[in-house]
Amino acid sequence: MQNKITKLFKIKYPVIQGGMIWVSGYKLASAVSNAGGLGLIGAGSMYPDVLSEHIQKCKKATDKPFGVNIPLFYPDLEEILKIIVDEKVRIVFTSAGNPKLYTSFLQGKGIKVAHVVSSVKFALKAQDAGVDAVVAEGFEAGGHNGKEETTSFTLIPMVKEKLKIPLIAAGGIGTGRGMLAAMALGADGVQMGSRFVASEESSAHVNFKKKVVETEDGGTDLTLKELIPVRLIKNEFYHRIQALYDQKAGVEEMIELLGRARAKLGMFEGDLEEGELEIGQVAGLIHQIKPAGTIIKEIISEFISAQKEMGEVEF
Amino acid sequence: MQNKITKLFKIKYPVIQGGMIWVSGYKLASAVSNAGGLGLIGAGSMYPDVLSEHIQKCKKATDKPFGVNIPLFYPDLEEILKIIVDEKVRIVFTSAGNPKLYTSFLQGKGIKVAHVVSSVKFALKAQDAGVDAVVAEGFEAGGHNGKEETTSFTLIPMVKEKLKIPLIAAGGIGTGRGMLAAMALGADGVQMGSRFVASEESSAHVNFKKKVVETEDGGTDLTLKELIPVRLIKNEFYHRIQALYDQKAGVEEMIELLGRARAKLGMFEGDLEEGELEIGQVAGLIHQIKPAGTIIKEIISEFISAQKEMGEVEF
Repeated sequence: MQNKITKLFKIKYPVIQGGMIWVSGYKLASAVSNAGGLGLIGAGSMYPDVLSEHIQKCKKATDKPFGVNIPLFYPDLEEILKIIVDEKVRIVFTSAGNPKLYTSFLQGKGIKVAHVVSSVKFALKAQDAGVDAVVAEGFEAGGHNGKEETTSFTLIPMVKEKLKIPLIAAGGIGTGRGMLAAMALGADGVQMGSRFVASEESSAHVNFKKKVVETEDGGTDLTLKELIPVRLIKNEFYHRIQALYDQKAGVEEMIELLGRARAKLGMFEGDLEEGELEIGQVAGLIHQIKPAGTIIKEIISEFISAQKEMGEVEF
Repeated sequence: MQNKITKLFKIKYPVIQGGMIWVSGYKLASAVSNAGGLGLIGAGSMYPDVLSEHIQKCKKATDKPFGVNIPLFYPDLEEILKIIVDEKVRIVFTSAGNPKLYTSFLQGKGIKVAHVVSSVKFALKAQDAGVDAVVAEGFEAGGHNGKEETTSFTLIPMVKEKLKIPLIAAGGIGTGRGMLAAMALGADGVQMGSRFVASEESSAHVNFKKKVVETEDGGTDLTLKELIPVRLIKNEFYHRIQALYDQKAGVEEMIELLGRARAKLGMFEGDLEEGELEIGQVAGLIHQIKPAGTIIKEIISEFISAQKEMGEVEF
């Protein structure tokens, strides 16, 4: 298959594994890339030396293209960017910040840049900033999210109407049918996060992986909207946030409850009660922890069968 | 095309026009049915005598199947059900209540019954109640909505996995591409509300229709979650609700602000500032007021071209 996304990143399938904090190390990224998708290392939870190590190990584990996801609010951003350039990473996904700041710098080093957005307005700003592709992420996605609450079903075609550069859809996609639906709505490729949390190679704690598999419809909520909106599993920590809302508490109390390192505690250390468990609504469709390569294979095979089924619909 | 939904309702295309308050009279319903879809009269905003009149006029305006949508919290429900039976309406869509109460009564009169839900749990309850089809409506839909906030992209496949009876998808769908995406995700048919608000035959005030056309990404919000969650356009009335939230006001103050007849004021009488304007996120994809028959034709033609395009994707 040759389309805008497979050509841009020189990959076999237009399936990108989201570069998530605490979850997406070199093992996951290389497994996805080896299976024909695009694996991303999530730099957001890595100290610079840890990131260096993951990039080096990823290069040894795959000869296929892979990339790094960088949240642009990262405190040691300059140091991270230097590592990206020195290690000759070819693909960077940026999120949560202004794409004007580093896009041309990275592209000047031969790096392809995609930027994650949650609205039409920010998609067009990213295009203006010169990025190579836009990731449009809907309300149903796990983790940090936008304030507009636009869902994938409407965000993908609304962005598609106005965007000229390649479009990657994210949020709610975890299957081959989802991939076909996203492409029917106008996406050139898809990014899946939650589906790969529950993979054998992800560095998520096994407790968290199992929790994702157990999560059903209605099991997550987008909360902390006054800070940065984030979609979480409704665990004990989440219910304590909601209790603060019920008490009409202020932002300061929210920040105090949130504290530090909740995401690491939940997703990496496996504390299912006190930790922050970031996952998308698509968790309700994830029933098994599998090897990342198997996930990619099943997505493509389900895409093909759904494609055939849709081809047989006649008017 | 013969599928579960076209067979069930004896219609040409599995496209259902939502039976919305203040918007869906006999003119809209008959226009949709005449074009091969299924038109629904929205009983929720009609006194019993008004509903009788609309059903009688609809029978004169079309010889094709049409139906009536009944919110089950309707105050004169018994009277409405008597009219449905006496007028020999063949199709009823129920919403916002317990489908166990009237499904078998209606089916005993030869009426097909579909019930609208917003979660997997309620979909299975509706199936247990014996309904002929389930409408699964996502978070992006306009008007009243569920508490789970599950979006169409994940709700459709999650319901599909467990439901045995026909599944109609609603919420965020307004185009042929949307219809293909919903069917790829597992729907047997689609229900579209917002798209038909901005039709020539809808009884929405022209001010409201024009406002729908102007509405962009981020222009709506799901609010009043403590009462019944409802998706509204962000107008003056909406901003006054939000001001109450900012002041940490209680439910009583919300109810007082809401008052009575806000929906009629906005959607039927065209007061864009003080009225309640219920519309879905898909408004951002609606750019023109068109005849309902043209809308159906364009949906089918876009479905076919998207189907062809997706058929050409090769791995």
